[in-house]
Amino acid sequence: MKPSTVIQRGPNDPGLTNPGRRQILMGSASAMAAVSLLGFAPLAKAEEPKTLPDYAAWKERNALIVHSTNTMETQRGAIGQGVITASDRLFVRNNLPAPPESIVADRDAWQLRVEGVKNPKAMTLGELKQIGVATVASVLQCSGNGRAFFPHGAGGTQWSVGAAGCVMWTGVPLKDVVAALGGLADGVEYITSTGGEELPAGLEPTQVTVERSVPTRALEHALLAWEMNDEPLPLTHGGPLRMVVPGFYGVNNIKYVKQVAFTENQTGVKIQASSYRIRDVGEKGAPNQPSMWEMNVKSWVTSPLESAREGRTMIYGVALGGTVALDKVEVSVNGGRTWKPARFLGPDLGPFSWRPFVLAADLTPGEYRIVSKATDMNGNSQPEGRMDNERGYGHNGWSDHGVTVEVG
Amino acid sequence: MKPSTVIQRGPNDPGLTNPGRRQILMGSASAMAAVSLLGFAPLAKAEEPKTLPDYAAWKERNALIVHSTNTMETQRGAIGQGVITASDRLFVRNNLPAPPESIVADRDAWQLRVEGVKNPKAMTLGELKQIGVATVASVLQCSGNGRAFFPHGAGGTQWSVGAAGCVMWTGVPLKDVVAALGGLADGVEYITSTGGEELPAGLEPTQVTVERSVPTRALEHALLAWEMNDEPLPLTHGGPLRMVVPGFYGVNNIKYVKQVAFTENQTGVKIQASSYRIRDVGEKGAPNQPSMWEMNVKSWVTSPLESAREGRTMIYGVALGGTVALDKVEVSVNGGRTWKPARFLGPDLGPFSWRPFVLAADLTPGEYRIVSKATDMNGNSQPEGRMDNERGYGHNGWSDHGVTVEVG
Repeated sequence: MKPSTVIQRGPNDPGLTNPGRRQILMGSASAMAAVSLLGFAPLAKAEEPKTLPDYAAWKERNALIVHSTNTMETQRGAIGQGVITASDRLFVRNNLPAPPESIVADRDAWQLRVEGVKNPKAMTLGELKQIGVATVASVLQCSGNGRAFFPHGAGGTQWSVGAAGCVMWTGVPLKDVVAALGGLADGVEYITSTGGEELPAGLEPTQVTVERSVPTRALEHALLAWEMNDEPLPLTHGGPLRMVVPGFYGVNNIKYVKQVAFTENQTGVKIQASSYRIRDVGEKGAPNQPSMWEMNVKSWVTSPLESAREGRTMIYGVALGGTVALDKVEVSVNGGRTWKPARFLGPDLGPFSWRPFVLAADLTPGEYRIVSKATDMNGNSQPEGRMDNERGYGHNGWSDHGVTVEVG
Repeated sequence: MKPSTVIQRGPNDPGLTNPGRRQILMGSASAMAAVSLLGFAPLAKAEEPKTLPDYAAWKERNALIVHSTNTMETQRGAIGQGVITASDRLFVRNNLPAPPESIVADRDAWQLRVEGVKNPKAMTLGELKQIGVATVASVLQCSGNGRAFFPHGAGGTQWSVGAAGCVMWTGVPLKDVVAALGGLADGVEYITSTGGEELPAGLEPTQVTVERSVPTRALEHALLAWEMNDEPLPLTHGGPLRMVVPGFYGVNNIKYVKQVAFTENQTGVKIQASSYRIRDVGEKGAPNQPSMWEMNVKSWVTSPLESAREGRTMIYGVALGGTVALDKVEVSVNGGRTWKPARFLGPDLGPFSWRPFVLAADLTPGEYRIVSKATDMNGNSQPEGRMDNERGYGHNGWSDHGVTVEVG
């Protein structure tokens, strides 16, 4: 951990100012027990754990909000201007406890089974590395990033803005693996990836297996990644091998991936069939509801968060377009009444990366509501409001993501 | 430190295979004492220190060769494919012991004096941050990177290839600071930056002050940087504020910068006047010799280093053009008899960044001499040989930088 990297925390982070707001979410003691079994701290424990869990002990503690053993978010003020999120500040969200460290002892020995191709095969990571390689920058973002802004009390980790980061991934293009195995089998519609986590004893496997299907349109850019930000992929983030689906929500980027199957249908496990589905508040999840696949256009301010001195203030933030490159970001210091174009900072790392932005504003003393609004190359802009949905997914409304700043 | 990131060490690293080769360099006991005073381990202590020094304790030990308290190089096998070098793997080279950690306790309070402008002024980092901002990726490389390959026994740290990395810097463009202070004074030819290190007692300040002059042509791209790789600039790498001169050798990127003076002449301190000068073997340094300013075109292989399996082998490396964008990299597996074009990996971060490259080669059993040769957009290619010079600076010959690999 680097010393002297104290992060400014702002009152605009709902996860910090209303720590008790979402405490009463679990309906029964058995549900609580199941949650504990999965490694989540019960939500009723509102206090942040003091230390990082062992498998993430190398992270920069001061840059993170530790929600639970398996959920850590980057502080809003800890997001920098360097395009690529430093690995030690990147958020963590595991659906199951991480496998033991031993799985990264001999990385090249890790086995991946590939099904749904003309010549199905089990291959080691060492063999995969001989097939091809690409490096792509893409945003990793939890489907529930922004959940804390929903007023109806959406269940799950109360992420503010920090369940997102921009990562440089290196691995073999999935389409190269498919080509090496004779091409896709007939009738294939989905890429179904399975995580290598050990399943908790006593639970029905279909209820807990981390397995996700994405449409085969994702094949063009998907990677089986073994490196993150110029280093071997840490266990914390899915090493030795992770499915990376650029532009898709984090849950589709399966960690410790042990199988990739090209399938006619989506997997029937819970995390696909009923979880990560957009539905009205109060409704149960079902396969006919939209799944959390491509990310939408989004941005948020990262500085200032609380206060600024009178005069010239640099307003910083980050913006992403999901699978579509960004066109522009506008910033308002009066809650959206008037807007000014922000400037993108640093090199453009491609359509799946995020872009830091900056606007220099001259501010006289007073209170300001600073908001940002991104527009992608297809003309999609962030909406003002949120789209209420049961689990608080996919929030990209600009109003909630703003910050209130006192200038004086 | 991330666990399970063991790095392959190859016998091609001269700093490792010939640890005693350069032991007898210091001419007298008093010279040895002076070196110790400056924080270097005496060269006669050929064994690597077991631990990282306190100010660099957050670094990834397994990725580094620790030459001394103030010199740590990235292992050849620890350079990844992610374009930006992870901060915890970046080499360290301090000319004086690092200042105390207290100087990054209140970063925005750090003072910089600007001289040689129409309105000279002392400014805090907080004030500098209001002037402007830019993010640029650039290679940081020690002038002596590759020194270990010189046969004449060039004095100084025996860097192999690892005194280099590609970093994303964020800071205020120096030209914006100049504009804010009324423009350059008349007759200015150099940008002279001074480091904020405490000078060792008992030594003549002009002999030890870290102060470097670069020509004003560097003004176009120079930055006063406060962030590195999306994080506040660590003390280890010059935080809270560092002069960054993209495309220029590391020594010109003054750490803990406390003064920037635009001057008619180069500074007269030793590190400028006689050190970091290209001269014939046996000659003394003098101001009329070429100074280590712009870097030359260069590349080296990072994998494989020692052995590879029969069949398809992915040959990786990195290439840089200094201040000129790269045109191409060619790779030879037979010591330069025949060449094949390599492919650049990942996004292009601009002319000052390096570019990872890869070539897939089909290799039958045997011994291979793998070399790489980069060419910049002006048509400059790496030479085959080295340009012998007293201090072993600026080595970009492709032959010495190759690796011998056993395939079987």
